[in-house]
Amino acid sequence: MEAKVTGPNSLSLSDEIVRRIHALAAISETPDNLSRIFLTPEHRAAADLVMGWMRDAGMAARLDAIGNVCGRYDGERTGLPCLMLGSHYDTVRDAGRWDGPLGLITAIACVGDLHRRGVRLPFAVEVTGFADEEGVRFASTLLGSRAIAGTFDESALGGRDKQGITMREAMVAFGLDPDHIGAAARAPSELLAYVELHIEQGPVLEANKLPVGVVTAIAGATRLAVELRGTAGHAGTVPMALRRDALAGAAECIVAIEEFCSSDRDGLVGTVGYINAMPGATNVIPGMVSFTIDIRSPRDSYRKLAVTDIVRHIEEIVKRRDLQLDINVTHENRTVPCAPWLQKHVAEAVKAEGFRAFELPSGAGHDGMAMIDIADVAMLFVRCRGGVSHNPAEHVDDADVEAGAKVLLRLIENFKPKG
Amino acid sequence: MEAKVTGPNSLSLSDEIVRRIHALAAISETPDNLSRIFLTPEHRAAADLVMGWMRDAGMAARLDAIGNVCGRYDGERTGLPCLMLGSHYDTVRDAGRWDGPLGLITAIACVGDLHRRGVRLPFAVEVTGFADEEGVRFASTLLGSRAIAGTFDESALGGRDKQGITMREAMVAFGLDPDHIGAAARAPSELLAYVELHIEQGPVLEANKLPVGVVTAIAGATRLAVELRGTAGHAGTVPMALRRDALAGAAECIVAIEEFCSSDRDGLVGTVGYINAMPGATNVIPGMVSFTIDIRSPRDSYRKLAVTDIVRHIEEIVKRRDLQLDINVTHENRTVPCAPWLQKHVAEAVKAEGFRAFELPSGAGHDGMAMIDIADVAMLFVRCRGGVSHNPAEHVDDADVEAGAKVLLRLIENFKPKG
Repeated sequence: MEAKVTGPNSLSLSDEIVRRIHALAAISETPDNLSRIFLTPEHRAAADLVMGWMRDAGMAARLDAIGNVCGRYDGERTGLPCLMLGSHYDTVRDAGRWDGPLGLITAIACVGDLHRRGVRLPFAVEVTGFADEEGVRFASTLLGSRAIAGTFDESALGGRDKQGITMREAMVAFGLDPDHIGAAARAPSELLAYVELHIEQGPVLEANKLPVGVVTAIAGATRLAVELRGTAGHAGTVPMALRRDALAGAAECIVAIEEFCSSDRDGLVGTVGYINAMPGATNVIPGMVSFTIDIRSPRDSYRKLAVTDIVRHIEEIVKRRDLQLDINVTHENRTVPCAPWLQKHVAEAVKAEGFRAFELPSGAGHDGMAMIDIADVAMLFVRCRGGVSHNPAEHVDDADVEAGAKVLLRLIENFKPKG
Repeated sequence: MEAKVTGPNSLSLSDEIVRRIHALAAISETPDNLSRIFLTPEHRAAADLVMGWMRDAGMAARLDAIGNVCGRYDGERTGLPCLMLGSHYDTVRDAGRWDGPLGLITAIACVGDLHRRGVRLPFAVEVTGFADEEGVRFASTLLGSRAIAGTFDESALGGRDKQGITMREAMVAFGLDPDHIGAAARAPSELLAYVELHIEQGPVLEANKLPVGVVTAIAGATRLAVELRGTAGHAGTVPMALRRDALAGAAECIVAIEEFCSSDRDGLVGTVGYINAMPGATNVIPGMVSFTIDIRSPRDSYRKLAVTDIVRHIEEIVKRRDLQLDINVTHENRTVPCAPWLQKHVAEAVKAEGFRAFELPSGAGHDGMAMIDIADVAMLFVRCRGGVSHNPAEHVDDADVEAGAKVLLRLIENFKPKG
């Protein structure tokens, strides 16, 4: 039994992590635009590469029933419950290379460091690379973590990709058995906690000049589809007072949504990302406009209140303008709070590495949203340049990679299961 | 020499006019959606039909060098200058049947009535059916009336339709000589005036419960293309205060344009008909938005002032939001005022038929915009249901067809060349 090391590790981990980030990014459907999609040959090649790294780090590595890569580094004895680390290794199309892989590769590097130093802990450490978080190929997201949490919805197997291939067919072609996805599920008793390191994908850490941040919650989201109907008309012949202009109405709604969310001080955000005005000609007053609203808050009660208020604002605008309104919730995600005891572990590791323990919510979705069904969840955010993500320009400085790795390693070594 | 008839004609003209409207509407590229496009077999078939009606009405009829149909009803002696009436007989795609044909067919019906009664006037009456006003096939509009006004731009011959066919090629295929379009031009001395009857294409007459209206001017128009650039970002991760949301900025501009135009009391109208937000995903803050602005006023000085003011508003919004702005004028048409002496003729004919001489500007463009280069111009508007035009639902009641025809006939018979 080796002595437990609790102090900071002096070795630089970022060289290896950054090198591996680039090696993994080379596995892409298209050489110039990183795209690594669920159940493709690139998924297979990436899994093989990652499992090799896991084995180098002293872990037992396997592909599970849905294509997640699962590495296990036993504790002081075999069969102990684990602290699970991880992130996803699929990408969006034309992706950045850090979203997902940084968390997975950093976790492997930390375990590798323990392994090189011969450190065994009073718990196992597992590292999971989730096969599909982004949901690019089929309609559903979080497929990998849902399978592990035992909440995979079997009806998703009938979903088709753009080529018309069902998920069931794609799994068979990949060499997996779609009738045994249940085998990927883990029991809550096997997990002490789930901790994920991920790039922030937003500008808050950069604005605060901090390399890392402690996530308080993964914000819940409500998405709405709005359709306004007025009367199309000739841009020249209908006096302003006789118009029922659907786009002017939509514009007033968009301004109102922005104003409403900006006046909130608790992290509420509202976005209109998509708009379409019909018929869409320069010289025709739009008779119909559809747009989407995405509303997020780290507190579900605030979000629900905000949705109600925003819908009421829209209804007022529409009524005053004599437009017709069709508004529907198309998507709703609860907020996943990070467990306070586990957040405290993250914050202490941050402080131990000499940084301010800055708290922020995650506005983006993450695998923790599924993992919460079998474990307490925490997240450590790493600053990314300009807050840019889902974009080839996504970038993390070496120093921030190093900061993230050191905090994660400190967290692992100081980790104590919940009282 | 017959006695000149100056009183109202008791015969109903609307039966024949409405029957011919429907007969002409049957000549369409697609049977279910009226589309009659420049230099097509439908153009040819329509020209033949209209020339037959002209001849029935006692006119000499010919196709001119660009495909206009030209009918001439001589006055008390041959070679007299003419009062020219007319409108276009091309359509937009999926058109209504009244936009253009009503003016052309009503004019023929009026001449037919003179002919049946053996009335000859101290001037000739010509009726022109313009071959292309809408500009659907090639990029330019008013091709027919520009050829007659001698302002046809020869460079338009190189323009291509969606199939890649140049206007030059299409003219040859139709049997016209593109090198002799100049032959269509008429001398100003040949014309005493140009008067066009047209559906209003707007809701003002309907709102005022009047079948006809006296047009004061064809409103000039300025079209602008606007591009706003901000920063695209994740809808969940960028706090409201750190956003540079191009769509929220555009929405504020659209609301400001509407507000500005609505506060004007001189017929200014402003329309944003087209908008595109990029990348256009529900969960992404739009980084780039392009939209168009169409501004019209019956007074050029007002319109120019309005454009300046609107651009200044947009610049303020863009500056406050730290967006980048690209704004360009893509199209500009001067206002064509209807000649006061000729407007008076129209107003007197309207009153003589027992209607109120209600004045309104034309917000839509018309062939008069080209004809003004060789003649004084006036227009008589006829009410159309709901102000709907450029749409299969376009409709004119029989009684309004009759009212328009009676006023036009009265105008012809009472017409006196400018002192």
